[in-house]
Amino acid sequence: MSDKATKRAKFEHAWARIREELVSHVASEGMPPEAIEWYGKNLDYNVPGGKLNRGLSVVDTAEILKGATLDDDEYYKAAILGWGVELLQAFFLVSDDIMDTSITRRGQPCWYRAPGIGMIAINDSFMLESAIYYLLKRHFRTTPYYVDLLELFHDTTYQTEMGQLIDLITAPEDHVDLSKFSLKKHRLIVIYKTAYYSFYLPVALAMYMSGVPTSYTLAGKTIEPYKVALSILIPLGEYFQIQDDFLDFSAPPEQLGKIGTDIVDNKCSWCVNTALAVATPEQRAILDANYGRKDPAAEARVKEVFEAVGVRERYATYEAEVYGKLVDMIAAIPEGLERGTLKREIFTSFLEKIYKRQK
Amino acid sequence: MSDKATKRAKFEHAWARIREELVSHVASEGMPPEAIEWYGKNLDYNVPGGKLNRGLSVVDTAEILKGATLDDDEYYKAAILGWGVELLQAFFLVSDDIMDTSITRRGQPCWYRAPGIGMIAINDSFMLESAIYYLLKRHFRTTPYYVDLLELFHDTTYQTEMGQLIDLITAPEDHVDLSKFSLKKHRLIVIYKTAYYSFYLPVALAMYMSGVPTSYTLAGKTIEPYKVALSILIPLGEYFQIQDDFLDFSAPPEQLGKIGTDIVDNKCSWCVNTALAVATPEQRAILDANYGRKDPAAEARVKEVFEAVGVRERYATYEAEVYGKLVDMIAAIPEGLERGTLKREIFTSFLEKIYKRQK
Repeated sequence: MSDKATKRAKFEHAWARIREELVSHVASEGMPPEAIEWYGKNLDYNVPGGKLNRGLSVVDTAEILKGATLDDDEYYKAAILGWGVELLQAFFLVSDDIMDTSITRRGQPCWYRAPGIGMIAINDSFMLESAIYYLLKRHFRTTPYYVDLLELFHDTTYQTEMGQLIDLITAPEDHVDLSKFSLKKHRLIVIYKTAYYSFYLPVALAMYMSGVPTSYTLAGKTIEPYKVALSILIPLGEYFQIQDDFLDFSAPPEQLGKIGTDIVDNKCSWCVNTALAVATPEQRAILDANYGRKDPAAEARVKEVFEAVGVRERYATYEAEVYGKLVDMIAAIPEGLERGTLKREIFTSFLEKIYKRQK
Repeated sequence: MSDKATKRAKFEHAWARIREELVSHVASEGMPPEAIEWYGKNLDYNVPGGKLNRGLSVVDTAEILKGATLDDDEYYKAAILGWGVELLQAFFLVSDDIMDTSITRRGQPCWYRAPGIGMIAINDSFMLESAIYYLLKRHFRTTPYYVDLLELFHDTTYQTEMGQLIDLITAPEDHVDLSKFSLKKHRLIVIYKTAYYSFYLPVALAMYMSGVPTSYTLAGKTIEPYKVALSILIPLGEYFQIQDDFLDFSAPPEQLGKIGTDIVDNKCSWCVNTALAVATPEQRAILDANYGRKDPAAEARVKEVFEAVGVRERYATYEAEVYGKLVDMIAAIPEGLERGTLKREIFTSFLEKIYKRQK
């Protein structure tokens, strides 16, 4: 097995134990057998089947911060926090799919479209969120950073919901109005809906677990490590999403592994916002008339405008710029051997996975 | 104004301030004007229009525990916890209405049926829940009982979701199967879906705020006051819901203020479960054939069976028994003048409001 596959298998092994804890707890509350079984299916269907990048990055970050392999107890703690991020994501995805009337997710019908589920999926999504706090209480109650973990999950959840709200009212699938779009709005949606929970949350969780304090002094400089992490991970998350938007438009389906649908789905994507910012009145009219239509000819006309305004070149320029800026920010972090201090590798490992990825 | 109306007005006045805090916070995060406005409407439409019994009981309990009028700071703190319970209920009601495909709530269309809302209501319900933790962080962070409040809200939320799950899979509106019903199942649904958040949560919140410890000694007896409160408030909440179910069947609409629909809606009500427990095979066949049908003749046949098995007498017996039991439990609480100890009045005030109520 590759190093990556081994890591994933170990993380999935921890899930089997966590899943058991969650189902046993519901059983111990005296729930009837059909409710216990239902909850188990909810967990199995919605939590473990994704790429697990977010969850695994908690474990990776904890390991980098320790500078050595985690012992069994440390690993399980990090895995619980990692699966907490995956549970939070599952809560969002199950409910987002209902709000977006999506059809499939991870190669299977969305949970609310699975046989016999329907709108009960809403309550099921709630129970995925509640599982996080049950696990934190069970495993972190007596740690000095318990409240920090709770507040971090709360704050991040609220931020993600704000991002989802702006996205929903800016880009409803059934009503195209490009005057609502802008690069500024795109940025806000991306940061709130994705960057906080996908990039800052996993790293900050691992930092709390590893005893990183709110501030420390190194090489004569006072560092506020959570602020430093935020200042890097938010633009990094923005970069990741902009790249995602760009690949949806530009990557051939055989490379991307799926067919891009942002244009026909009226998505508030970086590409359309970039085009809108520089379009001539004629190009703007083509975008207004063709964006968000379920029609391949309309989609082709939008793509022509994207090419004409130079979305490819603009992306290349953006990527070179943001990469350089992030490299500089990471290089500016003072590093020492002291435990509980930031390591540049936390951020470089994210950046190198993202930079110039093809899918 | 009556004493009750004055209390309500003061509590609503606190809401105006809390609502402002919530909207200002979202604005301070840089949300666009349309999202700020949307959130304000979500709060106005879904939080303040109910009976407010749950929220007010936090304030009442805090006052009883203090044995004197609350000062301004104490009042606002109690009101925030009270509105926290109302926010939690709003989170549940907005989403329950979608799951139940309900039409109206509190005399207006359900939020998801209001113009332009639709499934965005799901995310709106999440933001009502998140508001609770924002308020707790803002106002209770530095108190010694902050973690207790967080855990109490988490635990209660999870319990209510478990209750909602059992209810949804036991009594779907579109598929009648009385073999899934039982008095035991009814009890579980009522306790988890209603009693914890409506009765235990408000009292326990006020107890934490008033500095009631986990255990104390009075008159030579060791008391665990949260366990005592739970042991009284759970059967009290069960009694409240059983009474609600009974009134839905028995009270004339002009007294009840609405038309009872539990029978046609296939509700897992105390009445049908009581009837099922004692029905002859013939009566059971009538219930199977007529319960949960949108047909007044079918409803009338179910009501005949309820009368024939003596649901009215059985209710009267239950009520006398549970009332007596609760009176005895309350009388057994040792009382002293020490601050931070339980007062019987907390429980008698609930019981007297419920006992023999007509609507």
